[in-house]
Amino acid sequence: MEICMQGVCGAYSESAAQKAYPNCEAVPCDQFETAFEAVEGWTVDRAVLPIENSLGGSIHRNYDLLLRHKLHIVGEIKYAVRHCLLANPGVKVNDLKRVLSHPQALAQCEYTLTRLGLVREAVDDTAGAAKYVALSKLEDTGAVASSAAAEIYGLDILAEDIQDDSDNVTRFLMLARDPLIPGTYRPFKTSIVFSLEEGPGILFKALAVFAMRDINLTKIESRPWRRSSLRPPGENANGLQKCFHYMFYVDFEESMASDNAQNALKHLEEFATFLRVLGSYPADTTML
Amino acid sequence: MEICMQGVCGAYSESAAQKAYPNCEAVPCDQFETAFEAVEGWTVDRAVLPIENSLGGSIHRNYDLLLRHKLHIVGEIKYAVRHCLLANPGVKVNDLKRVLSHPQALAQCEYTLTRLGLVREAVDDTAGAAKYVALSKLEDTGAVASSAAAEIYGLDILAEDIQDDSDNVTRFLMLARDPLIPGTYRPFKTSIVFSLEEGPGILFKALAVFAMRDINLTKIESRPWRRSSLRPPGENANGLQKCFHYMFYVDFEESMASDNAQNALKHLEEFATFLRVLGSYPADTTML
Repeated sequence: MEICMQGVCGAYSESAAQKAYPNCEAVPCDQFETAFEAVEGWTVDRAVLPIENSLGGSIHRNYDLLLRHKLHIVGEIKYAVRHCLLANPGVKVNDLKRVLSHPQALAQCEYTLTRLGLVREAVDDTAGAAKYVALSKLEDTGAVASSAAAEIYGLDILAEDIQDDSDNVTRFLMLARDPLIPGTYRPFKTSIVFSLEEGPGILFKALAVFAMRDINLTKIESRPWRRSSLRPPGENANGLQKCFHYMFYVDFEESMASDNAQNALKHLEEFATFLRVLGSYPADTTML
Repeated sequence: MEICMQGVCGAYSESAAQKAYPNCEAVPCDQFETAFEAVEGWTVDRAVLPIENSLGGSIHRNYDLLLRHKLHIVGEIKYAVRHCLLANPGVKVNDLKRVLSHPQALAQCEYTLTRLGLVREAVDDTAGAAKYVALSKLEDTGAVASSAAAEIYGLDILAEDIQDDSDNVTRFLMLARDPLIPGTYRPFKTSIVFSLEEGPGILFKALAVFAMRDINLTKIESRPWRRSSLRPPGENANGLQKCFHYMFYVDFEESMASDNAQNALKHLEEFATFLRVLGSYPADTTML
């Protein structure tokens, strides 16, 4: 199984892919869009896409990619981000003056890096930082990256779990050309995107289709959607001029193989202005 | 009025602060937390905090800061991110080989930068990239940053609006030690955070308190919240082991000065396990 991921070898996406498919071969690429195209063009079997992080939130841009392309979600992986301080063999913490990583990783390790008095330098990605430190044989510069990156690039781990906040989990989606045949043999989750007319109570109505059928939601998120016609000022009852419609991202705990889920979505379709099922897939129930 | 912001002069936060308070003085600082502390310690009057972006999503980390600190939201600003390609005076597009910026800004301008054949290099922030290009008098390197940064650091604007997606809007919050006295003289918005017991239909019940009172929601977002006790496996009816409770972020179009909003929150408080009003403030109704 070949899986395309954005980034270089040793990226967190690679670890997530290997958690999902233990013997897979990770195929690195530059951009998320390239990963989608690699699956669509039959070059690889799957793509792995980070969709939300417990500190950073949902990545709307990657939802946009899901909507622009026709791939199906066939799995999810929750992966705990555990940053390490890496350096070339023989280099000690006290030798370090600088540290390289993705700015978000640097920000997530702020407390430790400040305590060590290290000058932070931003680069494109965490594994790329490790690769650069290794290839350039730097002796005064470390990298913040995963333990997997340490192994790949032959670096020592000087400190583990250096993130300030231990609750740092990224959720990845596995994408394929064909949908999974949804089963009920194990807990399934279904991800949908829909849009609604505006107005008080309309979201309430949408959630009723799930609540009335005892379907539990694991995620709901509204997103203003600008690509829509404007209402004339004053048409809205309470005086706010609206330049947005809304898209909603919802995940629920039910397989599309169940009549219950089918009925809920048929009901939602009666009044949603747009509805797409992104995929129905086994839930990642591992504790992190 | 002194407003603390994360970043250097010319950052988008500074432009947002100036849209809110036209004659304010922006006080740059390294970290968001420092900006909060500057307000709490009476060093400055306000802090400005990016809370969500139309492409990047909500910034959970900054919601965490709001919950850890006791500041109040007293305003919101929506600011359209318009990236420019900047270079030192006299430098032409064809002279450029590299371009510096924050990785998110580089990603947002991917199409243009690829077309120009520029090597991308990530740095901490957009305005910082402009400052570096100017101070180092680089002639083969440009920066992706705002037009405000061009003016401050004396750079030329070689291209405007180079982001791939024109729908790139960041919403900033203005924070103060004291809450605003909410009025009804103009459209107000109220931001709250609450948590609920788990279970199908419980969110539906929470949204009923708003729907029954014709209060329109402009944002709803669920966030798994790990800092909570675990349920024993099997207690959950459909077999998913739950290691999360949920926090919800909701914005609604009503001032806390109205009885309607007061009643809705009293009702929500009856069954929410946690509820905090982050602020009630005039809505930014400008079209972008």
